[in-house]
Amino acid sequence: MNRTITLAQGNGGEENRELISRLFFKPLANEILERAEDAAVIEEGRLAFTTDSFTVSPLFFPGGDIGKLSVCGTCNDLAMMGARPKYLTLGVILEEGFETQALERIVESLSRELNRNGAIVVAGDTKVVPKGSVDGVFLNTSGIGEILVEGISASRVCPGDAILVSRDIGRHGAAIFAGREGIELSSAVESDCASLWPMVEALLKEGITPHAMRDATRGGVASALGEWAEASGVSPEIDEGALPVSAEVAGICEMLGFEATALANEGTFLLALPPGEASRALEILRRFEGNESAAIIGEVTDRYPGRVVLRSSWGTSRFLEMPTGELLPRIC
Amino acid sequence: MNRTITLAQGNGGEENRELISRLFFKPLANEILERAEDAAVIEEGRLAFTTDSFTVSPLFFPGGDIGKLSVCGTCNDLAMMGARPKYLTLGVILEEGFETQALERIVESLSRELNRNGAIVVAGDTKVVPKGSVDGVFLNTSGIGEILVEGISASRVCPGDAILVSRDIGRHGAAIFAGREGIELSSAVESDCASLWPMVEALLKEGITPHAMRDATRGGVASALGEWAEASGVSPEIDEGALPVSAEVAGICEMLGFEATALANEGTFLLALPPGEASRALEILRRFEGNESAAIIGEVTDRYPGRVVLRSSWGTSRFLEMPTGELLPRIC
Repeated sequence: MNRTITLAQGNGGEENRELISRLFFKPLANEILERAEDAAVIEEGRLAFTTDSFTVSPLFFPGGDIGKLSVCGTCNDLAMMGARPKYLTLGVILEEGFETQALERIVESLSRELNRNGAIVVAGDTKVVPKGSVDGVFLNTSGIGEILVEGISASRVCPGDAILVSRDIGRHGAAIFAGREGIELSSAVESDCASLWPMVEALLKEGITPHAMRDATRGGVASALGEWAEASGVSPEIDEGALPVSAEVAGICEMLGFEATALANEGTFLLALPPGEASRALEILRRFEGNESAAIIGEVTDRYPGRVVLRSSWGTSRFLEMPTGELLPRIC
Repeated sequence: MNRTITLAQGNGGEENRELISRLFFKPLANEILERAEDAAVIEEGRLAFTTDSFTVSPLFFPGGDIGKLSVCGTCNDLAMMGARPKYLTLGVILEEGFETQALERIVESLSRELNRNGAIVVAGDTKVVPKGSVDGVFLNTSGIGEILVEGISASRVCPGDAILVSRDIGRHGAAIFAGREGIELSSAVESDCASLWPMVEALLKEGITPHAMRDATRGGVASALGEWAEASGVSPEIDEGALPVSAEVAGICEMLGFEATALANEGTFLLALPPGEASRALEILRRFEGNESAAIIGEVTDRYPGRVVLRSSWGTSRFLEMPTGELLPRIC
């Protein structure tokens, strides 16, 4: 490993995974941590527990802000485990001189998003550090959720499963990038930043039985699918033409040489489920605003265990690799 | 409130409490948050849940480092609620260019301290931000504890209660200050940074029934007693001469005009308990290394409800106020 920490080690892709497994998983090893996915399962499978820090820049972006993001990030991790978000803690690190009014807006936004999840903040911590010690404000939220359906896991993806995506991909990454670089677009791209619990709740209530769910955050759809491939020893095969990508996101990708599959999302998730449930799940997802583009994007095979296959419209196919390199720092 | 955030608003004293109550408690209001003390009580009184962010500078200080501190801080908050620390999450924000080896040392230290508590890290999050966006490394730990004795609370302090302190006060604040300013002392002062659960467990096992416990962190003993006075509407009366202060800490206070009662501690706690249990509790506390100076420092009356009284050795007395002003930024 490098002598010093690099930006690539925070990318949600290959280098990030290496840093975590070598520096944190080894010295802190225990059974629950080893099995933890989006959240850890504790208390005999009754509760899920997770944490996320937020350093996004800019603090306010099209479609959200750091307050909304800090609730979506943690509550979505719980939702992906089939857990109803219940209790959150809030850690705030403020830079001396930060505008009080901006902080008020952030807390209001955070509060609104909590309501969408039916969750509450039960404890907090506020630190103020001298000017220059932190850039504006960083947040941490940790969350406890009540597991309603047990056993939803990256390791339960089976050959034959259908793979769905809840909406068009890459919006959060594209919005942050455009916002940061001041790229003017005829129709500005908005982040997908949203709480997923309402959709997950609807799916579960209507009897859908997902084998795995994953919100495609840092590292995008490519990372999420790569983790399933590895954890289940299967081969997710995706039809490139079926992947919903908005014209705005496609434009930014073309302009800057990004892959939409590596761009971060903050309100978009993947489902692996029995093929017989796919069309009903799709119908449920599409009821939600923003999810009109939900799609069946492929299926799981055992052809290349541990690898993700991307099939082009011309009948060719290639492996979709885990993203590497710097990607976008401070995306969340 | 000020237009921008000030360092004083992170002091653990008066301004900090105002910021929290106006900016966070109002928009996020709920019954559990309102009743939360060192930790929130959730799941019908079975679990305690808390969070803490750590921004201490320097990262390595006499008696500890940010890794050890991040476990002590959160586990001690749980212990003060009569809860056995069980599960922690770990959020890490790293500055690009931070030394990998320093991070390894921090994680090892954190791991050792976890063992002292019998707790484990079950989930984590790692972010890397560009150089200049954060100073080195900031940590967040959130923790869940199993409440073994219910009802230990700042609001249960009664007239007649004895007040104990577990060891000499002000060490952490003095050590950080001396370390930061490069003050050379013939015998360097070490932080009291330590896990309190082993002591609390011993007290509870031997039948001690504390009404309230409080680790005297930011804002020191003065803040902790002030909170009891306010929450219980009583008057803690403290004998100045009984307050254990080491010669090193007293020296630093004299040199710099600090009050030892306003200096932060990270392994020192106050107990309010029935007077008949005081000498036995003292005997139990003194069994632990570092706690040889544990002392009965006063008792609770109803003379000045909501105020803390400091009695001098000459028979005079004054109110001990909640600390105000900048105190020491980045103390924890």
